[in-house]
Amino acid sequence: MTLVSDAATTAVLSGVELAQEIRAQVTATAAELTDAGVPPRLAVVVATDDESTAWYVRSIARAASRTGIRCDVVDLGAHAAPDRIRDELAALSEDPSVHGIVLQTPLPGAARAEELAAALSPEKDVDGANPVSLGRLSAGLPAFAPATAAAVLELLDHHQVPLSGRRAVVVGRSNVVGRPVAQLLLRRDATVTVCHRWTRDLAAHTRQAEVLVVAVGEAGLVGAEHVGPGAVVVDVGTNPTDDGGLVGDVDAGAVTGRAAGLTPVPGGVGPVTTALLLRHTVDSARRCTT
Amino acid sequence: MTLVSDAATTAVLSGVELAQEIRAQVTATAAELTDAGVPPRLAVVVATDDESTAWYVRSIARAASRTGIRCDVVDLGAHAAPDRIRDELAALSEDPSVHGIVLQTPLPGAARAEELAAALSPEKDVDGANPVSLGRLSAGLPAFAPATAAAVLELLDHHQVPLSGRRAVVVGRSNVVGRPVAQLLLRRDATVTVCHRWTRDLAAHTRQAEVLVVAVGEAGLVGAEHVGPGAVVVDVGTNPTDDGGLVGDVDAGAVTGRAAGLTPVPGGVGPVTTALLLRHTVDSARRCTT
Repeated sequence: MTLVSDAATTAVLSGVELAQEIRAQVTATAAELTDAGVPPRLAVVVATDDESTAWYVRSIARAASRTGIRCDVVDLGAHAAPDRIRDELAALSEDPSVHGIVLQTPLPGAARAEELAAALSPEKDVDGANPVSLGRLSAGLPAFAPATAAAVLELLDHHQVPLSGRRAVVVGRSNVVGRPVAQLLLRRDATVTVCHRWTRDLAAHTRQAEVLVVAVGEAGLVGAEHVGPGAVVVDVGTNPTDDGGLVGDVDAGAVTGRAAGLTPVPGGVGPVTTALLLRHTVDSARRCTT
Repeated sequence: MTLVSDAATTAVLSGVELAQEIRAQVTATAAELTDAGVPPRLAVVVATDDESTAWYVRSIARAASRTGIRCDVVDLGAHAAPDRIRDELAALSEDPSVHGIVLQTPLPGAARAEELAAALSPEKDVDGANPVSLGRLSAGLPAFAPATAAAVLELLDHHQVPLSGRRAVVVGRSNVVGRPVAQLLLRRDATVTVCHRWTRDLAAHTRQAEVLVVAVGEAGLVGAEHVGPGAVVVDVGTNPTDDGGLVGDVDAGAVTGRAAGLTPVPGGVGPVTTALLLRHTVDSARRCTT
């Protein structure tokens, strides 16, 4: 696919086929690892009774099992104390049969994900939650990036969007998406601007983007006035609608015909994220065989 | 001091007075710590015979001794193997009498500063070189920032330059200055753009900056055409001149009368950087008394 500037049509930058490709590779690798006596295993630590989280975690477990990865959901309950969570992460980090560990958010009130994630072995930190992973990533050392941030880059590469020397604007600065996406784009030689709630005249910044990544969690935040002609827009938002559906942060209708490309929600970044969590897990397991 | 937009005159944003203030505080704290039986101690590990590095390290040692901090320069020689350097950093990290450790660059060919610095105890990493420190910093957790990056922010604060919601542009993306300065500006709610060698039309980006930080190491890189009227410019560059002097990355003559403020070289970021290394060292030592 070629993305041209001033496109009259907007390409739908689907993540579905890419996710399938990744899962197929993961399935093959998982089978090899199992044959070699290292059956890959992922643990997801949950401490919430939030329904949409439960749905997401089930979807990870299902995808894992389909690719031949054992997935344990460790439910500590919505009232788990921070120390209890930290102990669990440390125990899983020491368990040689576990290759990937995800600390699922949200967490109980007193718990800070960044602090607890420091208890995660960086080698098993397949969702890049340990600050060590973020530091290594920005220092250019090997580390797992947060799966959502990695998915944004995989999706751009899959659709052959050039990054070097291009103006990239990231809206949102969370530790799980905005900041690491900015680091990854910078490593790929884009000129990167990070916008957030305190940014004055958001549209003036985003309109200059050749690559625009929106990761705020606010339906319809980005409309036609925020997008320059020919921009490639990656919508990381997943906002539930009243009728049980899901919409992104970008008003897809308003942007279509203006952007050169737009990732759909659902079916864009989401499926790639889950597939990458699994790929990170087999990558981690493979290290145990060498 | 008040910085106004469209200033016809350019304020000289000196770091000399600020450095004096910081050193005075450090001197008082160092005396208290020594009285309390915890004489603060800094170790600088050197593995180069580069003359300007030797000069810089001597200036740190002199400043330390004047403020009552013991400073050991551990010279491993220009041919030190990476393992030798790593072992030294690990040994100093375990030595309870040492509170701050600096791994001075440049390093011998095969050694990568980011990898070796991982052997530094984060608690003693007073120049924020360990990737853990950078990760914690960007995750919003307590950590020492690289002293130069911290000095940029201290200098902006000292001269009462507002940051929240302002357009900040950082030129340069090194692990020691550009990247951490961008993280610190983002934490202070600026809208931050990072430019580098692959940025197309650098001037178009930098002209939009209300706060412009230049950290590339190329004399005269930034001229009048790079600076918008009323911008505050922080010049981190220190480039030796043929006559034994020092110039920054900004063409001060060209920018004067256009920028609202400009940090001088020498006498801007440099003295604040050294003073902050010392402050970080007493901060680290103080933890040993509580």
